[in-house]
Formats: sequence, C-alpha cells, structure tokens
Amino acid sequence: MNTFGLHLRVSTFGESHGKAIGCVMDGLPAGLKIDESRIAFECKRRSGGKSEFTTQRKEVDEIEILSGIFEGKTTGTPLAMIIFNQDIKSRDYADIKDIFRPSHADFTYFHKYGFRDYRGGGRASARESVARVAAGAIAKMLLEHFGIFCESGVYAVGGIEASEIDFEYAKKSEIFALDKEVELAQKNLIDEARRSHDSIGGSVLVRAIGKIPIGLGEGLYYKLDSALGSLMMGLNGVKAFEIGLGIKSAHKRGSQSNDCMDENGFLSNYSGGILGGLSNGESIDLRVHFKPTPSIFLPQKTRDITNRAVELKLKGRHDPCIAIRGSIVCEAMLALVLADMLLLNTNSKLEYLEKIYK
Amino acid sequence: MNTFGLHLRVSTFGESHGKAIGCVMDGLPAGLKIDESRIAFECKRRSGGKSEFTTQRKEVDEIEILSGIFEGKTTGTPLAMIIFNQDIKSRDYADIKDIFRPSHADFTYFHKYGFRDYRGGGRASARESVARVAAGAIAKMLLEHFGIFCESGVYAVGGIEASEIDFEYAKKSEIFALDKEVELAQKNLIDEARRSHDSIGGSVLVRAIGKIPIGLGEGLYYKLDSALGSLMMGLNGVKAFEIGLGIKSAHKRGSQSNDCMDENGFLSNYSGGILGGLSNGESIDLRVHFKPTPSIFLPQKTRDITNRAVELKLKGRHDPCIAIRGSIVCEAMLALVLADMLLLNTNSKLEYLEKIYK
Amino acid sequence: MNTFGLHLRVSTFGESHGKAIGCVMDGLPAGLKIDESRIAFECKRRSGGKSEFTTQRKEVDEIEILSGIFEGKTTGTPLAMIIFNQDIKSRDYADIKDIFRPSHADFTYFHKYGFRDYRGGGRASARESVARVAAGAIAKMLLEHFGIFCESGVYAVGGIEASEIDFEYAKKSEIFALDKEVELAQKNLIDEARRSHDSIGGSVLVRAIGKIPIGLGEGLYYKLDSALGSLMMGLNGVKAFEIGLGIKSAHKRGSQSNDCMDENGFLSNYSGGILGGLSNGESIDLRVHFKPTPSIFLPQKTRDITNRAVELKLKGRHDPCIAIRGSIVCEAMLALVLADMLLLNTNSKLEYLEKIYK
Amino acid sequence: MNTFGLHLRVSTFGESHGKAIGCVMDGLPAGLKIDESRIAFECKRRSGGKSEFTTQRKEVDEIEILSGIFEGKTTGTPLAMIIFNQDIKSRDYADIKDIFRPSHADFTYFHKYGFRDYRGGGRASARESVARVAAGAIAKMLLEHFGIFCESGVYAVGGIEASEIDFEYAKKSEIFALDKEVELAQKNLIDEARRSHDSIGGSVLVRAIGKIPIGLGEGLYYKLDSALGSLMMGLNGVKAFEIGLGIKSAHKRGSQSNDCMDENGFLSNYSGGILGGLSNGESIDLRVHFKPTPSIFLPQKTRDITNRAVELKLKGRHDPCIAIRGSIVCEAMLALVLADMLLLNTNSKLEYLEKIYK
Repeated sequence: MNTFGLHLRVSTFGESHGKAIGCVMDGLPAGLKIDESRIAFECKRRSGGKSEFTTQRKEVDEIEILSGIFEGKTTGTPLAMIIFNQDIKSRDYADIKDIFRPSHADFTYFHKYGFRDYRGGGRASARESVARVAAGAIAKMLLEHFGIFCESGVYAVGGIEASEIDFEYAKKSEIFALDKEVELAQKNLIDEARRSHDSIGGSVLVRAIGKIPIGLGEGLYYKLDSALGSLMMGLNGVKAFEIGLGIKSAHKRGSQSNDCMDENGFLSNYSGGILGGLSNGESIDLRVHFKPTPSIFLPQKTRDITNRAVELKLKGRHDPCIAIRGSIVCEAMLALVLADMLLLNTNSKLEYLEKIYK
Repeated sequence: MNTFGLHLRVSTFGESHGKAIGCVMDGLPAGLKIDESRIAFECKRRSGGKSEFTTQRKEVDEIEILSGIFEGKTTGTPLAMIIFNQDIKSRDYADIKDIFRPSHADFTYFHKYGFRDYRGGGRASARESVARVAAGAIAKMLLEHFGIFCESGVYAVGGIEASEIDFEYAKKSEIFALDKEVELAQKNLIDEARRSHDSIGGSVLVRAIGKIPIGLGEGLYYKLDSALGSLMMGLNGVKAFEIGLGIKSAHKRGSQSNDCMDENGFLSNYSGGILGGLSNGESIDLRVHFKPTPSIFLPQKTRDITNRAVELKLKGRHDPCIAIRGSIVCEAMLALVLADMLLLNTNSKLEYLEKIYK
Repeated sequence: MNTFGLHLRVSTFGESHGKAIGCVMDGLPAGLKIDESRIAFECKRRSGGKSEFTTQRKEVDEIEILSGIFEGKTTGTPLAMIIFNQDIKSRDYADIKDIFRPSHADFTYFHKYGFRDYRGGGRASARESVARVAAGAIAKMLLEHFGIFCESGVYAVGGIEASEIDFEYAKKSEIFALDKEVELAQKNLIDEARRSHDSIGGSVLVRAIGKIPIGLGEGLYYKLDSALGSLMMGLNGVKAFEIGLGIKSAHKRGSQSNDCMDENGFLSNYSGGILGGLSNGESIDLRVHFKPTPSIFLPQKTRDITNRAVELKLKGRHDPCIAIRGSIVCEAMLALVLADMLLLNTNSKLEYLEKIYK
Repeated sequence: MNTFGLHLRVSTFGESHGKAIGCVMDGLPAGLKIDESRIAFECKRRSGGKSEFTTQRKEVDEIEILSGIFEGKTTGTPLAMIIFNQDIKSRDYADIKDIFRPSHADFTYFHKYGFRDYRGGGRASARESVARVAAGAIAKMLLEHFGIFCESGVYAVGGIEASEIDFEYAKKSEIFALDKEVELAQKNLIDEARRSHDSIGGSVLVRAIGKIPIGLGEGLYYKLDSALGSLMMGLNGVKAFEIGLGIKSAHKRGSQSNDCMDENGFLSNYSGGILGGLSNGESIDLRVHFKPTPSIFLPQKTRDITNRAVELKLKGRHDPCIAIRGSIVCEAMLALVLADMLLLNTNSKLEYLEKIYK
C-alpha cells in the first residue's frame, strides 16, 4: 500500500537512488487554482543542504507537474508530479552492500522481499517524503481557499523543550525552532551529537488553525485522530504521537482535562481540537516524536546478510536530527488528512446534498 | 468508514442503545477452527459490572455467529457476529437530551450529522468495542495457529507507573494491573477519583510475542506502526501512542537507541519490534494512553443545542478509568492488525507464490 | 470482497441455509427519512412462492433494521439489516453432499476453499440477493428524494422478445413481462421447460429515469458503465450485459449510432444515457442476460468430490427461469450504483464545495 | 477513481495532449524478472500509424520505468512507468474548442468538472490505454511464470463474423482478424466506412489459457466475471460484454447450456471458464463489443458550450474502427485482472498459509 486517503488519494513511488520520486493525487475537485511556485517553496523548506544541522546531500528538487492541470487549474483528473533524482552517490553505499545498518529498514526489507537494495535505503529512505511535501502543497492550496492553515516547528531537541510557541519564528529558524530562547541550546545539542559522530532525537509540534469546520472525520475507523495517527506514525523515525494534552492526559482527572464551554465557545483545548474523532472547530494540536537518526558514524555491532556478526563503520551524509526536516513532512501530512476529510464531509447530511442537487 | 483492514476487513455496526451491536469479518482463510467459547471469554474480559473499578452497566454479552462457519471451521465467506443490547437505560439520558457533555462526541456529532442521538452516546459509545473484541478473538485464533500471541495490561493509573511487567498477573487483577506492587496504589487513585465524582486517566501496555515473522507491514502507508497508530489513536479516549522507547527515544542519542545485533540476534529492543514499518521478529511493544473518562459527576459548564450556556450535572453509570477495559480492546486491535498483515504478507515475494502454485 | 461501493459501501453476509442473511450500509448521509414498509415491499417483489414460474421455497422475509436509524431518519452511521432464514430444507441436499451439480459454483468453491458446503449452495446461493434488494430499497429512497427513479422488467424469455416496453405492466405481471402481447408465449416457454424438468434463459431491461444529474461516474476505473458492468456481471447466472444499443452498436456505422443534439437536447439515446463513463442526463438503459437455471431435474453427467464420474438426478425447489426474480435484483443494483455516484459527485468541482463551506 | 485492482493496484494518470501518460503498479511480489523489451513489444502492438485501418497519429511510445526494479527484478515497491507524449497536434482541436462532439465525453466532462479540455479529449482519450497495456505487459510476465497466457483478436467487424478462431493468425493480421477467410471482407467494410467519412463497430474475443488455477475470484463483489465486466465495460466505446455463451445462453434451456463433466474433466465450456464467479480451470472466453468511433467526418447536429445548436464538421486523425486496437487493451485488462486474482487467492485457505509460515 503506497496510497493513502479515501477521497483524496495520494500514491507515491520511487527510491532514494532510482530515477525519480513522484506522486499521483486522485480525487481533487476541478477548478482549484494551482500556484506552482508554492509547491517549489514547500519542497525547498524540506530539502537539505542548508546548514550543518541537516544532511549535506543537495536535494535541488525540481518538481514537474505531468497531468491534472489545465490553464492553471485542477481538472478533476489525477495530478501527477515527478522529481528526478540528482546528486546520487550510490558508491557511498558499496561498502555496506551486505551489511545491515542497526535500527534501519535494511534488515526487515531483506527478509520481507528477499533481496538487498543497498542504494541509500531504496524505498525506505526519507527521500520519498519530498513527494508527500509536494502533494501537501496542493492540499494546502485547497485548505487555504477555505481559510484553513497548517504550520509546524521543532519544540524539543534531546531533552530541551520550548516554553514559548512561535510558529512565525520557526519559519526563519535554521532548525525550525519554535522558541527563540532555547534555540541555541538545542542547536548546541545537535552540534555536539554531530561532532561525536552521533545523532539526536527531537519532537515536533504541528497545528491547524483557521476556519476548521466542526465535524471533520469519518466513521469509527477513519476518525480524524485515527487518520493522523496512521500517517504520523508511518513517518520514518517516528516512535510516538500525541494529540492535545497527549500523554499528560493519562495523568489527569476528568475535571482537569475536560474542555468546558460557555456561550462564546470552548474554555480550553486539552483535546487538541478533536472530540469523538471529529474536529470541534478549535485548533488541531499534534506532537510527533522522532528517534535519533539511526545512521551514526560510531562503530556498531551488527550482522551481514549471511548472519555473521560484523562491526559497522558507516560513512555518508545524514541529518544529525531528523525531527528538523521531519517537521515539514508532518505539516504536509496534516494538510493532506484535512483536505481528504473536507472532501469526505460533503456527504455527511442530506442538507448538503440538497445544496448541490436541488 | 466503519471498516478497517486491507485483506482481513472488519466492519462494525450498532449504537449503544440500539437493538444490536455487530461485526462482519471478511477475508478470513477457510479452514480455521473456531472455538466459540473463546469469543465469549474475550468479551467477558472486556465487559463491565465486575467491580467498583468499572461501569455498573451489566453487559452480559451473548455473541451469536450468524454466518461464515461450517462444521466448526471458517468457510472463507463473511463471518458475521451479533450481540443484542441488554440492560439499556435510555431514561438516564433524558435529562441531557439537549445538552452537550463536555469533552464528549455529542457536540461534534450534532454538528456533523445535524441531530442529537442522546441515548448513551449512540455510535460514539465505547459499547461498540465489544464487536472489536469479538473480532479480535477470531484474529487471535488465527495468530495462535501460527504461534503468535497478544497480551495486555495497565501499567499506569494517574501518575503511578508499574516498575515490573507481569502479564500473567494482569490477567487476574481486577484492574488488569501489570505490577502487583503498585496495584493497590493505583486502585486507591481510581477509588478516590470515583468517590469525588471524578475520573482518572491511565496507560496501557500491549505486546505481541512468539513466532512473529520478519517483514509484517505493507508499503509506506500501511506500515505496521502506521496501522497500529491508526487503530489505537481511534479508540475512544486515547490521546497518545508509543512504540518501543516511544517519547523517550526523542530524548536520546542514536548510540543510545539503536538496536545492535550479533550472530544470536538483537541486543536490545528499543524499536519495539518494528523497523522501517516492518516487524523485525522481536516482541512488539506498544503504549496507549487514555484520558480520564469525560463523564464525571461534578457540575460542569457547557452549552445546550441552542448554544445557551448551561450547567450540567451528569447522572448514570460510567467507568472511572477507561484505560482498564480499554486494555482488552487494545489487545484485540493488535491481534486484528497482525492477522491482516500476516495475510497481506503472503504475496511479498515470488518464492511464496511458487510454494502455492508450482 | 463482500463489499461494494466507494462512498456508499454495502457489505453483505450470510448463507442460504445459515442462520441469517444481512447487510451493512455505510456512507449514507444523515437525515434521510426511511419508510420501512418500502423495504418490505421491495423484498416481497423479489421473493418466490408466488406462482409456478418461480421457486416454491417460501421466503417470507422479515427484515429487521438493527442500527443507523433514529426517530425514522438515517443517522450517518452504519445501517445494518438482518433477515433470519426460514423454511430451510437442508435435507433436500443430503443426496448431493459429495456431488458437484453441473454449471454450479459447487466445483469451484470446493477447490478454492477446500470443503463442500452442500446446504443449498451456501454463500453462492441467489438467496443472498435479498440483502441487495433491501439495501437497494434504501438507495431508492435517497434517489427518489432527488427525483430519480429505477424500474425493470423481463423483455425476453428464451428467444421470445418484447416489442413494446411497458414498465407499468411489468409491475403487475407474474413474470414481470414488459410486453403484454408476448407474455403468454413467454409463460408457455417457461412452463414447457419446467414440465420437461428443464429450465430456460431470459433477459432483463433495467432503466433509470427522472432528474439524473449530468456527470455521474468517477474517474476511469469507476465510470458509471464500469460500476454497472461489475455489479450486473456479478449476479448469479448473468452471462452478458449491454448498455444502450449494446451489441447492436458493434454492427453499426458511427453515423447510425452517434447521439446528435439540438438546442432542446439529445435527438436519440443510443448510448443508453452514458457518455465517457458519465451520465448525460438521459434515461439509463441496461440489458442483463441470464443463463437458464443450472439446477435442472434431468439426469446429468458429473463428478463427485473424489473425481469419480457419476450421474446426478437433482431434486428440490428451483426457479425455472432466474431472469424473472433477477430483474428485481438488477433494479436494486442500479439504484445502489446511482446512489453511490450521486454521493461521490459532490466533490467534482470547487464550486460545489463552496456551496457547503462558504 | 483512477486506480483498479485490490492487491495488484494499477493507477494511471495523464491526458492525451498533456506532458505524459503513466502508471503506477503497487502490490507486485518481489523477485519477478522484468523484460523491458516485452513492455515495448506490447505497446507497439497497441500503437497506431501502422496502416489505413488505424489512426495516423504516430504514437512512438517510449516507456521509461522509473522505480520498482532493481537488478532486473521487481522489488515489491511501486513500479512506475512513464510515456512522454509526442506528435501532439492540439491545433487540430482549436476549431471545436467550444463545441461538443456527438457521442463523445466532451459534453459530460464539461458538466461534471465545469470546464472544457478540448485538446484531444484530455483524460477521456483512448490515448490513456497505453498505460494499461504497459501495466498489462508486467501482469503477463507474472502470469506466464505460472503457465497462464492471454490472447485476443477481432472476431467481428460490422456484421461480418469469424467462423474460425485462430489467435496465431490474428497476431499477424493488420486488423488482428481471427479468421483469415473473412478478413478481407472485414477490411473492406472498414475501408468503405473510412472513405465515406464514417466509422464502423467491431467485436473482440479475448481468451486466457494454460494452467489457470481453479478458484480465482474473490467473494461476491469481486468475482472474476464481475472484475472483468467492470474493466471491459469501462473501456472507451465498449457497449456490451459477454462471457462464454453470453447472450446466447439467455436463449437456451439448462440442458443445452450446462457444462457436464466426466472423470477427465468438463465436456463443454459454455460457461467461459467461470462458475459462481470463480475460474473453473477451463479457458476463459470473453467477448467485448465496441461501438463505431464517434469521431466521424460527416456533418453532425450538436451544441456548443452556450447550448446553441451548431453543425459540426470534424477534422483530425481517428481510427475508423476502435475495436482493432481495442483488442490489445482488452487483452491487457484480462491479464491485469487475472494477476490480481492470483495474488488475492493465496489466502483462500489455511493450508496455503501453512505452506508459507509453517
């Protein structure tokens, strides 16, 4: 299954060191104005090569739209996008051709599919996420047409957490830090990890704001939190996911975590904008936790494909903290989920159908 | 979408105070022996009325299999199960007919669907989970045939966490406590909450052990962690989900969270049995965090359906800590995901097809 | 796959001689008024026992709605219906327990699933179609709310074809004959077949009329003709399917089969209301061709489950011409496809979304 | 929905006069050897420009595989293929920019999506079928690995039908004629139609032979005949579909159309290789009927987008008989359906799972 979404279905294809990465979006309504520069802008936010805090692989991603647009607008037919791979250094991987990198997908892919695509992780590489971000840019244009906006930032690196949340600041920060006050300490932690040939974990805050209709989410198995959980937990390196108060809610009493209301609206947003699996109109707040990059440059005990124990000394180019670029991917996934839910919701009540057909 | 699973598809139907709750399982292989008493056993584990720690609603669930079984074995056709609702006290809800209970699905369902099914939460009630547990029992029989086992327990109530993990003990504990040493303290916390007309949050540990094949999980959008994240986050009251080290991995360095290997296997299981979205053969470890029951009996500020501010004083029967019964539901969901993945995996390589067709 | 539909998903379960037959409809909009007597009425049209032209098995189908309705209207949650089986004579089948009936599903089911459910065909029985008709009744209520109507009738038995098409007459005819003039000859053909312990084929005309919106149908693989082709070809005994001119169009020139237009609309309807896979607003005309009932009472050469050649002399109760009752099922399937397409179409253009969200 | 298949899912994208046409195949098992020249071969069979019997548009389709292959074998990840469009003459269409061509998708697409993509039919063009044929070539390699083969040919043009069926001859025939004896008469009919600026209908026979396992087909709504009916009826210009005896079976008695058996196997194949929606091991026989090309060069009454009546005189390049090239597309669709069914069937019984996991 390399497709997600129920009405707005996104399929991606491509390997890290193959010819191209791409995606096909099916189910977009016709008539949506597409600004191609916006897609480039979002992909650039995601791409590396910018600083010592992210990978040195230069992903100058040129996104080409192949179909689904006519005279600047969506046509209702599949919108396909393609990004040809560049700056591929498969040679980097020749040494580890037969060796499983610890905590990588190498080992499990080998056993599932019966062969070893050693070139940069193949399909399991985070490289694929550029297709998600390109698709996310389209979803954002749809959402923004209806006044809904998505934003993200890094709120924790290692143990160091933000106390203030400033999404505007995150946009300018090299590490997408949400809190200017702790940014330097967070950068230092990344730098130390990198210098000691190690890596570091981090956590991301993602948020949707604006005119979110009440009631987004579908049935019991495609609830809004369910769909978000699915896509966030499926991102490379993500090991935990929270909505609203998250884990903290498990420590509370009901009287401390219920969102009461008065005639002006909700008095709190502990639920993170979701009740009973449906949006309640408040801002949607998600926390996504990334493990440290498994590719580290310290010697590690592992096995080769013949099951012999070997010591691995990895080379190559890797992000010391995947949460940084991961935040942009999370933001794209949130946009894609909300866009799908917006489309699915048009059939929730007969009254809506009457607006169209009567 | 009231269906989940790709090959093994489970659809559920029914409302808390309607005629019946049921499920239809499609995609089961023919020839699996079904022990009906096992289904009853699992549903009994989930049902309330046992102690002061769970709801007083008596759910004496009699599960009837309607189809899909012939001479004690599955037939490959849809297996439908039905549970007629009993001990329904819809009157309890008459007072709150027009009032939204804080942090309940009432408010969002009303806006999405345009009406108020006030009878015990309707489709949004945790009552529906009996159908999941019945389906999970079938999934367990399939998994156990191949040597895979699922288990669960409560590891935290409020802030009080288990230090030892003993799944055998949990089976006998009234609150499914994993650690005998903290059980009493956990019970006291629940009791205090209940006595003060309040409720309390809790956390659950779910585990799969045994002969888990390496490689369960499908593509990039139906990874094992993704499917688990979807179903666990979709459970009523769940606000956070972790795999393996979970949030803690975001605080670590790579050298502290990578699972190294030698010729005998993995040296640790920080990843919780999942690498690159595929099972790695180790035990699968999940943590699921439940908020406190939103139904509390303290006065709360809320609104009625005409948007007037009102004060709510709730009556009725509710679990003071939904994590307890929730653990059984989590266990069922894990079994259902693994069963689906086991079936999907049979086409992963040509070699498998050759075993069947050549 | 015992589910069909993309937004309006219908799942059915149950075997001919099992406890019950049922269906679950997911994706209905909330707020649709449901007249339960209409469901009973449609199921009665389909049920046998009425005359010598259909089966003597008495299917007094009492349909019970289990969920998805509140105060007479749909709730947006799954609508489940159940029909408990009655008048089951499994003994009739004891003699053929180990013998494959020619041109029946017995042989293929046995090889696929590895066992023999001899009781009246099990899941492969046309008995299951009662669930389709019940679901179709709901779909009709949705369509009729928007001015769309479905109707059907038998236009050919054996080689004898109708020259006039009168759907009103078909409603009253014992064999749902569309043409009063040929009805007697058609009846005689059925009667002759029955008396000589044989059966006879027949053909059905199904039509949708009224305010069919232009544009129903989705993408290239869920075109309106594609969805109809799928469901009609999947009915028991159907061996051919035509839209509009059907096979005759393969004999024509373009100038003889194109539907021209003037300012008042189409000048012909050779296309049967579908262009490019989308409805064009004209009436939708389908022809569905049923083979003769395979259950005949003449001696036939066949095999038993040990592959020995045997002669079969069948007993039991069977329709001499399955096209008669089949017409009602076709009508239900047309309604279900159109209802699904009506729902899917609400997202075809941004303008529709603006009607709901702006 | 621009995706079909349940386990082997094929998604296509692209418009006739857009940048590219492509497809993504998801769900292929890893380890299948791919011969790229075979893909080119199949696409060349489908492409026009060969004779006066097909379009003059030169579709020199160069298919590029972008992903999913490593060292000549499938990897289990999505296999994407792309064909950049060439020889595009959008100018041809400038004159009809605002006019609906009779019996074309123009009219319905305009109303559904709210705009007019006049360039060669956009997504509704038969040009898209090159992606199907490329995907079909992959499916054939999988099937042939297991001894299953697909073939096709034209058996009727206008009213002139083949009496002999020779698939080997069809491969060499300019019009893929199955019967050498009637080929010339069929060619003449096409030629006459073309010379009188008209077009002509035709019919295709498609067949699968070889080691077809008994039991291919899934549940009641993804039966083998249902899936075939869906995809064949969804092809441009197809108005009727038959399996085995097809329409003729509606004229027969049961004793004339049942397939009896002895210890050596079936004594006839009236059912066309499908019983109860499952393959019975015999050859699968399908007939697909195409209407005449709607693009004719005679004056026709139609409307423009402002609903004014106009007379259309079409120019451009079109096949006089779409059934010819259509036969190759039908063959590809049959291969794709069978490949999907082969994969789905691996879970039909526990015994199969045991071969893999025990």
